[in-house]
Amino acid sequence: MNDGPHEFSRRTSLKWLSAEYHDLNGDYIDILENPPTNLEFARIVQISRPVVIRGFKVPGVSSNKWSNKYLINAMGSRLVSVAVTPNGRADAVTLGPDGKLYFAEPAMERMTIESLLENLSDDMNSDDNGVSLKTYYLQSQNGNVYSSRFFQGLDDPSEFEPLRQDIPSEVKWCTEALDKPPDAVNLWVGDGSSVSSIHSDPYENIYTVVRGQKHFTLLPPTDGWCLDERFYPHATYVRTPDQGGSMTLQPSPGNTPPVRWSSILNPHLPGRLPPEAHPIHISISEGEAIYIPVGWWHHVRQSGITVALNWWYDTEMRGMSWVMLSYLRAMKDVTSGNSNDEKSDVMVN
Amino acid sequence: MNDGPHEFSRRTSLKWLSAEYHDLNGDYIDILENPPTNLEFARIVQISRPVVIRGFKVPGVSSNKWSNKYLINAMGSRLVSVAVTPNGRADAVTLGPDGKLYFAEPAMERMTIESLLENLSDDMNSDDNGVSLKTYYLQSQNGNVYSSRFFQGLDDPSEFEPLRQDIPSEVKWCTEALDKPPDAVNLWVGDGSSVSSIHSDPYENIYTVVRGQKHFTLLPPTDGWCLDERFYPHATYVRTPDQGGSMTLQPSPGNTPPVRWSSILNPHLPGRLPPEAHPIHISISEGEAIYIPVGWWHHVRQSGITVALNWWYDTEMRGMSWVMLSYLRAMKDVTSGNSNDEKSDVMVN
Repeated sequence: MNDGPHEFSRRTSLKWLSAEYHDLNGDYIDILENPPTNLEFARIVQISRPVVIRGFKVPGVSSNKWSNKYLINAMGSRLVSVAVTPNGRADAVTLGPDGKLYFAEPAMERMTIESLLENLSDDMNSDDNGVSLKTYYLQSQNGNVYSSRFFQGLDDPSEFEPLRQDIPSEVKWCTEALDKPPDAVNLWVGDGSSVSSIHSDPYENIYTVVRGQKHFTLLPPTDGWCLDERFYPHATYVRTPDQGGSMTLQPSPGNTPPVRWSSILNPHLPGRLPPEAHPIHISISEGEAIYIPVGWWHHVRQSGITVALNWWYDTEMRGMSWVMLSYLRAMKDVTSGNSNDEKSDVMVN
Repeated sequence: MNDGPHEFSRRTSLKWLSAEYHDLNGDYIDILENPPTNLEFARIVQISRPVVIRGFKVPGVSSNKWSNKYLINAMGSRLVSVAVTPNGRADAVTLGPDGKLYFAEPAMERMTIESLLENLSDDMNSDDNGVSLKTYYLQSQNGNVYSSRFFQGLDDPSEFEPLRQDIPSEVKWCTEALDKPPDAVNLWVGDGSSVSSIHSDPYENIYTVVRGQKHFTLLPPTDGWCLDERFYPHATYVRTPDQGGSMTLQPSPGNTPPVRWSSILNPHLPGRLPPEAHPIHISISEGEAIYIPVGWWHHVRQSGITVALNWWYDTEMRGMSWVMLSYLRAMKDVTSGNSNDEKSDVMVN
C-alpha cells in the first residue's frame, strides 16, 4: 500500500485491514478448560478475540435446574415479555407485504413461562422451514435479570425475580479484569426456530448456555465490510386478532430513522459471505461460556429448547479500540436496502 | 464520513482517526502515586496510553548509588560502547557535507565510564548550541544490561556486568501483566547535549530515571501523520584522526536501504508540529518511571548528567493493535527527504 496512489477506495482500505487482521490472527479460537483468572482475562480482553470457557459454573447446571418443571415451579403465574414473530427472525431484514424490505422488530407479548415453554419445541431439527405459525423467543435483552439500576444500588424490578437466586449478578473474574460491574444481565429462552441475525454489540459479552446448545457464527470487526450493511425502514410485527392471530409487518411512521443492518441472513451457510470473510463457527453447550469481544459480529442459532444467560459489560472507550471500531463503521458506504441500483443479498438468503 | 465520496485521500483518513482519537482520549496523562499491580497494569496496557509511575524502586536511587564515584568504582577499567556525534543528534536527520539530508548514525567508540563521565556536563542549560566539538551518549540500547539471551537462559555477556546487581532484570508487575519476560534491558547515560529524535518502537517500554531528569514529548500513534516522515539515505559519523579528531558524516554504500524517519527535529518547540497534533510534554525525575506504549511517538531530552534504565517487552502481535499500527504506517505517503518537489521541514528546525 505504501507506493499506491494518493486516492483509493474505502473498500480497498477495509479489505487491507481485513486481510492484515487475518494474516496476523488466523481464525483459531482459544478454548480454556477452566475459567480464567482476572489477570488472564484482562490479557484476553486486550487481544479482543473470542474465547470458549469450559467449566463455567452457574448454580444448578449439573442438577438440571433449568428444566421446564423447575422454571414453571419457580416462576408460577408471573408474566414475562416474549418476542413473537411468524418466522423466528426478530430484529432481522424481512420482506414486507408491500414487497419492500424492512428491519422487522418482533411483537412483544406477555405470558407465563409455562405458556412460553408449551410453545417451544425440543425437536433438534426444527428450523425456520417448520410449519409453526408463530415463533416465541424470550430475548428481551434489556437487563431482564439485572439491569444497570441494580449495579447502581437502585430498585431494579425484574420479571425473573424468582430466578435471581440461581443467576449470579456478575462474573467475578470479568468484573475484576474490567474494573466495573456488568451493565446488564439477560436470560434467553428459545428453541431451534429462533435465530439472532448477525450483528455486533457495543459491549464485552460473557455468554453461557445452561441448557441446550447454541451455534455461533463469529466474524472479527474487520470483516464487517463483508456483511452488506444497508439502511432499512423500520417495521414491527403486530398480531391481527380478527384473522386468527396471524401476524403482519407494520411499517413504522415515516419519521422513524432507518436501521443500518446486514443484508446477509444466513452467514453460517456456505457461499453467503464473500470469499475474503473468515467466519468462525463454534457451538456452546451446557456448562460452557463464550467471550464475545466488543465489535465482533455474531449470528446465533440454537438446538432444541435452549436456556442461556449473558453478562454485558460496558466497553472501554479510552484508547484505540473504540476509535478503530468507529472507523471501520464510518469507512463503509451504506446505501438503502430498497435501492433499485443493486438488489440486496437478503432476497437470495 | 458516512455520506462522503467513495474516494478520499489517505490524509483525510489519517486526520479523521487522529481527531477521533483525540476526541475520545483528550491529552491527559495519568499519574500513579505508586506502581500498579499486575492486574492494574494489564488494564493500562489495554488502553495503551502513557502513564507516569511514581515510587518506582530501583535499588540505590535513594542512596545516590548512581553517582559518578559509584559508577567509576564499580566499572573500573572496563570499556563500554558510547555513541559519539558532533551535535548530540544520534539517529536523526542531518545535513551532510554535500548539502543532502541523511539519517545519521553515531560513531561508536569504546571507553571507560570514567572517560565518558569526564566528557559529560552537569550544566543544566547545556544544549546543542554549546561549543562542544563532540557529544557522548551511552545509548547502545541493544539490551546492554540484559539481552533476550539472558531471558532464554543463555550466556549473556554485558559491558555492564558489575551493575547488574543494581538493575533488576524485569519489572515484576509488567512481566506478569504481559505474561512474558522483557526482550531487552538498557542503561542510558548522557547529558543535556544529547537528544533522541522523535520515533516509535515496536515495544512496550518501562522507562525510569535513576539520576537527573528526562523530558519527553509524546504523540499517540494516530498523530504519526503530523511528523513528516520521509526516506533519507543512511550515513554514519566517522572520526577523522588526522584532523584533530573532528567528525564527518560518511554516506553508506548505495545499496543501503534508505531510512524512513521524521523530518521534525524539535517537536517540543512551538510551531514545529501541525496544529492538529496533540503533543504531551512530561518530565520524569529520579524515582519516577513512564510507561510508553507500543507505537507511541517520543522525543527525549535530558537535564544535566542523566542516568536512566528501560525495560523493553515485545508487543502483543495478536488482536487489533498491531494491525492498526501497521495501517497507520501504510496509509502515509512517504516521499524522499531530498526530493526537489517540497523541501523537508528539517531545514528550518
